[in-house]
Amino acid sequence: MTKSLGLIGCGAFGTFMLRHLAPFFRVRVFDRFRDLDGIRQTYNVEIAATLETACTADIVVLAVPVQQLDELTVAIAPHLRPGAIILDVASVKLKPAAILARNLPANVDIVCTHPLFGPQSGKNGIAGLNIAVCPLRGQSYACVVAFLRERLGLKVIETTAERHDRELAYVQGLTHLIAKILVQIDVSDIKQTTRTWELLMQSVEIVRYDSEELFQAIESENPYVGEAKTRFFDAARALEARLSNHAADNGEAG
Amino acid sequence: MTKSLGLIGCGAFGTFMLRHLAPFFRVRVFDRFRDLDGIRQTYNVEIAATLETACTADIVVLAVPVQQLDELTVAIAPHLRPGAIILDVASVKLKPAAILARNLPANVDIVCTHPLFGPQSGKNGIAGLNIAVCPLRGQSYACVVAFLRERLGLKVIETTAERHDRELAYVQGLTHLIAKILVQIDVSDIKQTTRTWELLMQSVEIVRYDSEELFQAIESENPYVGEAKTRFFDAARALEARLSNHAADNGEAG
Repeated sequence: MTKSLGLIGCGAFGTFMLRHLAPFFRVRVFDRFRDLDGIRQTYNVEIAATLETACTADIVVLAVPVQQLDELTVAIAPHLRPGAIILDVASVKLKPAAILARNLPANVDIVCTHPLFGPQSGKNGIAGLNIAVCPLRGQSYACVVAFLRERLGLKVIETTAERHDRELAYVQGLTHLIAKILVQIDVSDIKQTTRTWELLMQSVEIVRYDSEELFQAIESENPYVGEAKTRFFDAARALEARLSNHAADNGEAG
Repeated sequence: MTKSLGLIGCGAFGTFMLRHLAPFFRVRVFDRFRDLDGIRQTYNVEIAATLETACTADIVVLAVPVQQLDELTVAIAPHLRPGAIILDVASVKLKPAAILARNLPANVDIVCTHPLFGPQSGKNGIAGLNIAVCPLRGQSYACVVAFLRERLGLKVIETTAERHDRELAYVQGLTHLIAKILVQIDVSDIKQTTRTWELLMQSVEIVRYDSEELFQAIESENPYVGEAKTRFFDAARALEARLSNHAADNGEAG
């Protein structure tokens, strides 16, 4: 029989996942902040009237901002079905892993994931895109990996929460910093472009509409992002000084 | 009869152009700093023994660093054939345009160009890539544009030296700054990548092996690059301050 899947949180990423999950599960969606009428019609999924209805599914996907995970997991813990698989999809992994391990009962399986794509980068399909997966508790991990690989066609990167956060501090930390800087400068009206510039602009375009919550999660909920930011801003300052010295050596005004 | 083309300067970009020009012209190459034996064999072109031999062709392409253009044009001016077409390919345009207008005789045509690609971004072919072209003197401009469009398949952007330098201050100034910063941080060993990151790394990869001369030309020979650099570094500082204030508001150590 088709397994039930409770999707808790139906923001930009939760909504994006629906089209990929709906073919495989009886999906129930819950979002305490949104009217989901349009979602029900578009994806033909059940809208759960209460958090309890959504979290008593065979599989529960937590797609809320990382800042809300602690409160949410405390709320759902008493209602989870023994043997259920609980997954998160947050952009950092050490903090969610600690929260899920602490708040969820011992009789559910837990798999932490980070799909390394979103509505922009996955708009033409998700096959071949990366997802980082960290086993946390229980035997369901292999099933989850097999589903992601074989049904969704994703490239699964098996990792630990620590290794994830170390790498993503750079991957997400730096791309979002650079995007924020370039959006601030506003260089959208340029015609004489190089391939390098076009790639840079495509990179910016993918993340520039991400929510402020996601940006804050990336920039402050990853324990290694401080190091990545410091190295970026230090390298920027050193380069600025080098260029300014060079200009001075050449007798230029700056 | 096939026209003769003198290519003066056979560095990374000059060499790259040879394969695209050799089918259409009797090419003579001159480079005072390089042994061109390998070039002759690979491209089946004539190696000019002296600068004079190269610069008496029907078409003369100056592919030396912008820092050497003044000296070079003074040297070739007395030898140019009346009615010859002289082109430069430098990464900035106001300065070369001024040098060529000042140093070259009134009886030659001058077209300033900036191919917005190089050996890396053009390694799979140049059709469809951008070239900026500024007419400077004489009637040959239309012929040059037609050749670039119809024979080489380039997308010709007709512009002025000033408009070129204004836009390229951002296009090249910022991509090279960002590439220098990311190469300095050294993020080459990362596996858990997003599409945004992959695009950013492809962008860096195209320019990271460019010569220091090119970098210095871009960062100091374009009169508008100071504005672009200032806006980039100011935006970086403002973002650093905003993130640091946010961390302080949240009671974090930094």
